[in-house]
Amino acid sequence: MEPTYEEYKAAVDAALFHNLLLGDAEGMETEALMSAPEEGTIPQPLRSSMRYSLTLPGKRLRPVLLLACYHLLLEDWSIVMPFAIALEMIHTYSLIHDDLPALDNDDLRRGKPTNHKVFGENIAILAGDGLYSLAFETMLASSLTSKQPQRAIAAMEEIARRAGVRGMIAGQTLDVKLEDSTPSASLVGYIHQHKTADLLTASVVAGLLLAGATEAQKAAGKRYGQALGKAFQIVDDLLDLQGNVALLGKQTGMDAQRGKMTWPAVFGEERARLEAKHLIGEAVDAMSDFGEKAEFLRRLAQETLTRVN
Amino acid sequence: MEPTYEEYKAAVDAALFHNLLLGDAEGMETEALMSAPEEGTIPQPLRSSMRYSLTLPGKRLRPVLLLACYHLLLEDWSIVMPFAIALEMIHTYSLIHDDLPALDNDDLRRGKPTNHKVFGENIAILAGDGLYSLAFETMLASSLTSKQPQRAIAAMEEIARRAGVRGMIAGQTLDVKLEDSTPSASLVGYIHQHKTADLLTASVVAGLLLAGATEAQKAAGKRYGQALGKAFQIVDDLLDLQGNVALLGKQTGMDAQRGKMTWPAVFGEERARLEAKHLIGEAVDAMSDFGEKAEFLRRLAQETLTRVN
Repeated sequence: MEPTYEEYKAAVDAALFHNLLLGDAEGMETEALMSAPEEGTIPQPLRSSMRYSLTLPGKRLRPVLLLACYHLLLEDWSIVMPFAIALEMIHTYSLIHDDLPALDNDDLRRGKPTNHKVFGENIAILAGDGLYSLAFETMLASSLTSKQPQRAIAAMEEIARRAGVRGMIAGQTLDVKLEDSTPSASLVGYIHQHKTADLLTASVVAGLLLAGATEAQKAAGKRYGQALGKAFQIVDDLLDLQGNVALLGKQTGMDAQRGKMTWPAVFGEERARLEAKHLIGEAVDAMSDFGEKAEFLRRLAQETLTRVN
Repeated sequence: MEPTYEEYKAAVDAALFHNLLLGDAEGMETEALMSAPEEGTIPQPLRSSMRYSLTLPGKRLRPVLLLACYHLLLEDWSIVMPFAIALEMIHTYSLIHDDLPALDNDDLRRGKPTNHKVFGENIAILAGDGLYSLAFETMLASSLTSKQPQRAIAAMEEIARRAGVRGMIAGQTLDVKLEDSTPSASLVGYIHQHKTADLLTASVVAGLLLAGATEAQKAAGKRYGQALGKAFQIVDDLLDLQGNVALLGKQTGMDAQRGKMTWPAVFGEERARLEAKHLIGEAVDAMSDFGEKAEFLRRLAQETLTRVN
């Protein structure tokens, strides 16, 4: 029986909360540091800061994608949980650094104060670094990595490359540098591809690689991940636009989003909506060779669309 | 024939400059971004920013330690160069983030403007993230990792753990949080251990693990790395103190360093000097089982001391 999204998500949340060696941080925050922290623990306030952002309520889309893609080929998805939570750590690190005053300067994330607003910029920078580091530590120390080193290496390489300087960080760089520039199709495409689609694609492809996928299966997963990732970003932009229109009253959505590199800003809302629909069709199509087992992933893609309709 | 320090260092510099896929960044910096960067390249100004800090003249101590420790057991040290330069990337990322206004707020590093002074805080944060990421990408994609996955995984795990939230980042956290607190032996010990000795130890142990070291050899390497790392930090603190005394004239060194968690601040200069000497003796002793072949590493440790005598 195929697990539901909620079942995957609950397992991920449990792993994030309990299995992370982050331990119980209650009551330690305000303790004055008179002597050195215990060896082998994450010192305060670093630990609370990492935990704060990692355990904010979220969809856990990247971990769920990895688990579900592994499950396309092999049953026991619990063995790849360290890779699933590593993806959430990488996603969270990128959000903490993105929110910093020097970057997007956001005060709120998921309705809560951003990490630097709670812990200060210095700890927020280190917490981001720490989550990125812990992601690799967690994957490298996993039992699957001992048992299937070649598969683990292939998955980690996929993740490192797509999270890296030709992947997610490349997208963030352009997002930062191009604020207030004239949007163009090629620039928006680049930013969406790297800022959003790359890590989603890594989640899909790493899940397949960990299960020993063939080249053809890997290629299908890549197509699914890319299409889903781009659609996901367009839908997010459309939702932002609707939010802004509602918020700003008379201003048109286009005005409200001026200066941001988004698909609706370049092509208008109607074409953005059509493009998202087209991409979801592509994602669904990419999974056809997996047959019945891929129903979960096809539905997941289709549900992305319903958010803006 | 054992390579000299300069030979190792020249090979590391060559690898950093030429083999890093950073390519030639000249002339691209000021180009207006009208269309998307070429796929598979590191976009500007991220690339120039990473390269700027990575190629500032430095001792390349961590890469040289890894190469020399590998060479204790196996001849062809060029095969572990991707791991050696990964350590320099990790060291450089930590310096870029450390220098940021929210952390140490340093304007100069190795006599040159710090990364954020040249490229801005936003790009400096991303360049640090990028170098950390590229370190893992480089190790994971290396030919040694394909050929000897178990050894590569052991080395990467050692590096990730000691660079991570129970290692180097733990040290940085305390360094940041305890500025202007009363120095104590246990706190200074913790900060030295994690901020400095951990990554040096990882360099030594990873070099040995990549060469298939036994548990006893690994333990000897750990002892050497820890002792060298702590001595190295004490010597650095002593040099800072002498620099401050020279700079500040009448002020005593103790005054000049007040508020910094250093060994001389806690124990005074004389005892700090003795402790460094004791630690170097321990480092030299730790290598005794490697016999003649470890002469390079023993001499390297002893030369650390001569810097303050």
